[in-house]
Amino acid sequence: MPEHVAVIDLGSNTTRMVIYEYERDRYFRLEDEIREVVRLRQGMGRTNVLRAAAIQRAINAMRMFKELAEGQGVSKVIVVATSAVRDAVNRDSFLARVQAETGWNLRLLSGEEEGYYGALGAINATCLHQGFVVDLGGGSVQIIEVRGGIPQRSVSLPLGALRLSELFLSPDKISPTQVDELKAFIREQLAQVDWFKAKPGDQLVAIGGAIRNLGKIDQVKKRYPLDSIHGYRLAAQDVALMADQLWRLSLKKRRGIGGLRSDRADIIPAAAIAYDLLLTYGGFAEVIISRPGLREGLFFEHFLSHLPQPIFPNLRRFSILNLARIFGFDDPHSRHVAFLARRLFDDLQPVHGLSQEYREILWAASILHDIGAIINYPYHHRHSYYIILNYTLFGYSPRELAMIALIARYHRSKGSPKPRDLKTLLTAEDARALVILSGIIRLAEYLERGRRQIIRDLRCHVDIENGWVQIEALATGNAAIELWEAERNLDLLSQALGMEVELVEGIWLD
Amino acid sequence: MPEHVAVIDLGSNTTRMVIYEYERDRYFRLEDEIREVVRLRQGMGRTNVLRAAAIQRAINAMRMFKELAEGQGVSKVIVVATSAVRDAVNRDSFLARVQAETGWNLRLLSGEEEGYYGALGAINATCLHQGFVVDLGGGSVQIIEVRGGIPQRSVSLPLGALRLSELFLSPDKISPTQVDELKAFIREQLAQVDWFKAKPGDQLVAIGGAIRNLGKIDQVKKRYPLDSIHGYRLAAQDVALMADQLWRLSLKKRRGIGGLRSDRADIIPAAAIAYDLLLTYGGFAEVIISRPGLREGLFFEHFLSHLPQPIFPNLRRFSILNLARIFGFDDPHSRHVAFLARRLFDDLQPVHGLSQEYREILWAASILHDIGAIINYPYHHRHSYYIILNYTLFGYSPRELAMIALIARYHRSKGSPKPRDLKTLLTAEDARALVILSGIIRLAEYLERGRRQIIRDLRCHVDIENGWVQIEALATGNAAIELWEAERNLDLLSQALGMEVELVEGIWLD
Repeated sequence: MPEHVAVIDLGSNTTRMVIYEYERDRYFRLEDEIREVVRLRQGMGRTNVLRAAAIQRAINAMRMFKELAEGQGVSKVIVVATSAVRDAVNRDSFLARVQAETGWNLRLLSGEEEGYYGALGAINATCLHQGFVVDLGGGSVQIIEVRGGIPQRSVSLPLGALRLSELFLSPDKISPTQVDELKAFIREQLAQVDWFKAKPGDQLVAIGGAIRNLGKIDQVKKRYPLDSIHGYRLAAQDVALMADQLWRLSLKKRRGIGGLRSDRADIIPAAAIAYDLLLTYGGFAEVIISRPGLREGLFFEHFLSHLPQPIFPNLRRFSILNLARIFGFDDPHSRHVAFLARRLFDDLQPVHGLSQEYREILWAASILHDIGAIINYPYHHRHSYYIILNYTLFGYSPRELAMIALIARYHRSKGSPKPRDLKTLLTAEDARALVILSGIIRLAEYLERGRRQIIRDLRCHVDIENGWVQIEALATGNAAIELWEAERNLDLLSQALGMEVELVEGIWLD
Repeated sequence: MPEHVAVIDLGSNTTRMVIYEYERDRYFRLEDEIREVVRLRQGMGRTNVLRAAAIQRAINAMRMFKELAEGQGVSKVIVVATSAVRDAVNRDSFLARVQAETGWNLRLLSGEEEGYYGALGAINATCLHQGFVVDLGGGSVQIIEVRGGIPQRSVSLPLGALRLSELFLSPDKISPTQVDELKAFIREQLAQVDWFKAKPGDQLVAIGGAIRNLGKIDQVKKRYPLDSIHGYRLAAQDVALMADQLWRLSLKKRRGIGGLRSDRADIIPAAAIAYDLLLTYGGFAEVIISRPGLREGLFFEHFLSHLPQPIFPNLRRFSILNLARIFGFDDPHSRHVAFLARRLFDDLQPVHGLSQEYREILWAASILHDIGAIINYPYHHRHSYYIILNYTLFGYSPRELAMIALIARYHRSKGSPKPRDLKTLLTAEDARALVILSGIIRLAEYLERGRRQIIRDLRCHVDIENGWVQIEALATGNAAIELWEAERNLDLLSQALGMEVELVEGIWLD
């Protein structure tokens, strides 16, 4: 039976509740999400007193979230507060009030804990192995070092976008002097963190609303072909450009920027400046955006509590199976298509010469190739493509995502594989691989047309000199339909390899 | 537990198997489909002997279909043959051979039965109430009169596209004399059917591969915005144009026509000419294409066998609930949104003045508004839109489909509702209705934000003169979240009505 858990974080700017449905070790999915701009930090200034209006807004939001969670049969609620409450001199009164009004024990996260959970969310969504996670929120920024895929030391600095805006910048017209003072303050804070320096191969992953908004602005400007922000790579030079330009615009002009949520228009100049200085200081050429962060980290701690560390041992594999299970995939069929496809990939390696990276992409596309059938059978390959691109698959870059979606798209079809809108995400080698992998998956699919694993295995014989490949399909019984359908679908693979491909019926011997 | 049934029809040109998964009285969905161009009629000419090669192709296809059906756990197989076998002098030998090779009792349909099942498929997919169904296949054409939504008399004429092509037209270059002879033959045959004449209000629905191909050609030419052929309206004048043009092209040129399956290029001139004469003779200004036909009619006879007639008593309602069930919708929530939305529609009737037709569309959109959440929660309204447009909803016209999809799309969103690509499908009144109905569904959705039916009912008070509407939300308990969320989402409705809209909390009294 699926369970439901709610995670709420009360930040300095916004508070959000997410509700996850899950079955441990099988799947999880985001079931509901609600966001409220509470601005808990508003008016705190340098006194660090939570103000009456802000307290009331927070309490109202908590009460509403409670109603929503209860209405949806949530069995566990995880509620945390971050820097605004942490910094407040009247935090104890506030926590007691929340307890009285909702019955919830609001857990106050230390800066270190906040960093840890944010990093957990980011690592479990991006496969970050070596480098850093940065979480720039309303009140503070957390920087967490990641080594061997595990969060290590972290620091929390008072560099949240809302706090910086309140302390240094006018709401509407910002002056160069204000910007200079802001920069000086940020630099002074960063100077304390001498270990935040990129080593060769290190990656920087950022989480939180501010970076998502910077990313969205960049996506709109560059006509990025996907709707999703997750995994988006933002170049340091583009961040620098935004840091230099955004503060020069009036609030009204900022509100009109494509991609920017208008309720972020006030804090976006400070966010851009802070990120610019962070990237420069750390020595990173780009930042990878992760949609999951703190809340997801808290969810993963719960979902993966049976593991020694709440980190997916094989994130990509779980991601793909998670999506497949949500759509009720035909498990033996999909896995067998994946098996046959990889057999073809391996046996034909001397011909296509593709790297092992593509083998993993081929596996993912094979597992997911049929998920679109729930929408409508005749065009199910197109719907699989749509779902893969629109569901947020953790652990894959946008480029990999595009490849998986395209290969699933072309497991059936008349025309030859074309990346179309996704072209800008792919390399030249990807475009070549797309045709080969589509040829492979199509053949594997038709060799498994009856969904009964009757073509148990394959063997390929290759004569590169004379330009032909023979594929022996080893059957455990009468596989007429598979052989017939596969025979009619050899052309794409043959074209892709530039070789004659012949299919021969063989007997599978145990 | 879902059951699986396979339906196979062995036609003159192609044979197809469809496999349906279903639970009686709950849902059905197409699970697999396979098509084989068998050309059973090939070489029969005027002798009416099924030829050896054609027999072998048919037997091979049947054997493969049997393997496929068995691999998918089909508990019942319905196999029928139509005109090629019906007309064949050696049909008994053929039937015995099929029985020996597959164990199946192939049911030979009379022309009348073929017409009946085709009409059953079409009626159950289009809500045809008064008029005719035409099924132009490879060997014969069936014309069935429909009165009160029930198939009545029918006739089968030897006017199938493959037969006509073989008897009258050269495969490649067709001469004007051949066309004249063909037309004379068709006219002579039609002259026998004096009851095939449009009465006022009659509709003509056509099924079969030939009309789908003519429709596709027209869709490509007109840049039709949907992928689906079902429900497409083809004007008599466009059919006449194709009838006049297609035969003048060489086979090679016909193969290059956008939208045409290349394996139909040989028979499409005869198909276009036959449809042109059918429309002229019957006196129809247009023909509506139904994707479902004979096979679906046979499936419906099985699926609806508990009813006095195998016809959906309320097709549109079943269609919507069928789709909702496939996606595991939240039944009480969706129905309650539909209830609240219709209450708003009714109470605000004096303000918006929309016809009752829109009330039904609003209901459908309300039931389906959340189905996209399976793909990804944050943009689920967009995914609901995609699914509604790409799943083939029976009983709705493309225009209605577009409205349902758009209203579901805008149940959440920042921007104001815009038909975008679907604009060409809508009337000016539709475009106005879209904004009003989106405003209504959005409010209904937020009044049911907690998915707990706590806002039991609504009451609207309207002051048209002074330009305001008050909506009393009658709650059975503390509905703070619903009232809060609804309050923030009044703007679209207010804009749409051009009136101030205020929300008041009320108590629901039993």
